[in-house]
Amino acid sequence: MLINDKEYRTVWMEGCTVFMIDQNELPFEFSILEANGYQDTCHAISHMIVRGAGAIGATAGFAMAQAFLQAPVKGRKEFIAKARYEIESTRPTARNLFYAVERVYVAGEESVEKAVITAQDVADEDSRDSRNIGKHGSALIKDNFSICTHCNAGWLAFVDYGTALSPVYHAHNEGKKVFVYADETRPRGQGARLTAWELFQAGIPHVIIPDNATASLMAQGKINIMIVGADRIAANADVANKIGTLEKAIIAQTFNIPFYVAAPTSTIDMNCDSGADIPIEERGEEEVLYQKGIDKEGKIREILVCSPGSHALNPAFDITPSNLISGIITEKGIINADRAGIQSIYSQD
Amino acid sequence: MLINDKEYRTVWMEGCTVFMIDQNELPFEFSILEANGYQDTCHAISHMIVRGAGAIGATAGFAMAQAFLQAPVKGRKEFIAKARYEIESTRPTARNLFYAVERVYVAGEESVEKAVITAQDVADEDSRDSRNIGKHGSALIKDNFSICTHCNAGWLAFVDYGTALSPVYHAHNEGKKVFVYADETRPRGQGARLTAWELFQAGIPHVIIPDNATASLMAQGKINIMIVGADRIAANADVANKIGTLEKAIIAQTFNIPFYVAAPTSTIDMNCDSGADIPIEERGEEEVLYQKGIDKEGKIREILVCSPGSHALNPAFDITPSNLISGIITEKGIINADRAGIQSIYSQD
Repeated sequence: MLINDKEYRTVWMEGCTVFMIDQNELPFEFSILEANGYQDTCHAISHMIVRGAGAIGATAGFAMAQAFLQAPVKGRKEFIAKARYEIESTRPTARNLFYAVERVYVAGEESVEKAVITAQDVADEDSRDSRNIGKHGSALIKDNFSICTHCNAGWLAFVDYGTALSPVYHAHNEGKKVFVYADETRPRGQGARLTAWELFQAGIPHVIIPDNATASLMAQGKINIMIVGADRIAANADVANKIGTLEKAIIAQTFNIPFYVAAPTSTIDMNCDSGADIPIEERGEEEVLYQKGIDKEGKIREILVCSPGSHALNPAFDITPSNLISGIITEKGIINADRAGIQSIYSQD
Repeated sequence: MLINDKEYRTVWMEGCTVFMIDQNELPFEFSILEANGYQDTCHAISHMIVRGAGAIGATAGFAMAQAFLQAPVKGRKEFIAKARYEIESTRPTARNLFYAVERVYVAGEESVEKAVITAQDVADEDSRDSRNIGKHGSALIKDNFSICTHCNAGWLAFVDYGTALSPVYHAHNEGKKVFVYADETRPRGQGARLTAWELFQAGIPHVIIPDNATASLMAQGKINIMIVGADRIAANADVANKIGTLEKAIIAQTFNIPFYVAAPTSTIDMNCDSGADIPIEERGEEEVLYQKGIDKEGKIREILVCSPGSHALNPAFDITPSNLISGIITEKGIINADRAGIQSIYSQD
């Protein structure tokens, strides 16, 4: 995507170095982080310098390729096994991470070059799949539609284009008039910070809303469709996604508003029979208790925004049962959110 | 309630001065603001130094009494009419404000002393009603219950005891083991700041949760009952309350979790036939875009937490239809959330 007239991907690899947009600095600063070994890349994933299902996957794939490049001749096998373990330990929920690591690992068993090529392939496919999700999903967006989205499943969450926002970008580029309600997505505020930043860069009309305002806007008929991303999709089409997705899916159904999940088929995990099998990451309470932003002088500061002495819970994801989902927008087309829909993906191959 | 071993009300009047706990400074500083004329008191209401339905009502009653005390002999009638208009213009949604102003105004037409006595009565009745709400509501709370609440309808929102939290305090004092999930209540964070602060002061076990986490906790069976306050209740039992209440009521019904509204009968507005007749306050976008808190040195700072260049919506309240409400806990008992239930209040008199 274009930032200040320059084309960027969220993450890319040159030689043994992985480059990525530092999403912890956004929306206040735009900077590129260089990770010179798989250890640095792991740190970037676990500290959410790069975040979002597809971007995590591509970055993890690059990290695995870095490990093959770094591995010494002596103790090579152990080095690579340890690296794989460390990469897979960075974030537990996103399916794409395990998918990418597995592919690069298998390729690396043939040769280091294959590992690097495969990691680049994973990133390229993520970009291509995201673009195709936009093409398919755009059919759901009519002229003058208002779209609500949760968290950030835009291009920052993938290598390019994104998933939930890709249909919006596509519809906008086709000349349709669209408006986006970006909910804040506390505690980390990916909606208020990243989705709003992306939409502002793309010149798409939008407004930030508190997470609490969605039901009220739906009751007033102000939202035509809701599209969110996914971190993992089970075989029965239950979806793990950013905390709050379940709540939005319930209220969308209450107000008869179509609720779509947009994700590449690499997000599907046939080893998870239902949502109950998907591990849910619990993150530290400090993400709820503290907020980062800029003061009037433009200096980045972190402040305590809750009552001192109280503690907080911070579950990062929740499970939305498939019966609340109108359909899943994949790179291969829109499928039903049920076992047959998920199966149809594989029978196409 | 006790703060540092001293008994406090949220707001009180001595002579011509209204004293109130500065809730904009909480939870980081505890200070008392003195308003020496009705104009200062109006400013305190509109700037949310005092907030919450009952506290707004009592404060507005005191402001009206102040106006009678301040009124000059010449142009007395105009002064008082202008004061009433200004007081009623501070916040549009809370029923209690108009109820209190009307009562004090009518009393003041008899004498200034009657205005002052009536304003004190309004505050005393609010405190007594809140205590009775606690007594009635406590019957809903079993030993080892986890209660979820939204916003702050504790004693800070009233003169004393509160509404939604009053049953929790009562149950706790009766020796029941209770646990409270206090949702943040973005954008102003009354849950994370005020409810958590109150519960911490009272020694009641609790945790702050992001607004997005409620559905997930309910799905996991971790919440036994939800109790919220009300800013205005229509004749058909529709309820106006803090933005997000509608969303919580919908998800509570989805998971079969009892959803109660706690409010004194003075919150009922028979002039509003349904929720559609209740005016909803829109507040400035800066409450969403900026956050106030303390930095590591304990200095209060305000920071921008959203993407610069994007705008935000900030509806302060929403309407929860009565069919989502399990019952209304009033000072006279728990009533059904329907027209007959509301009517039963008046046939008791």
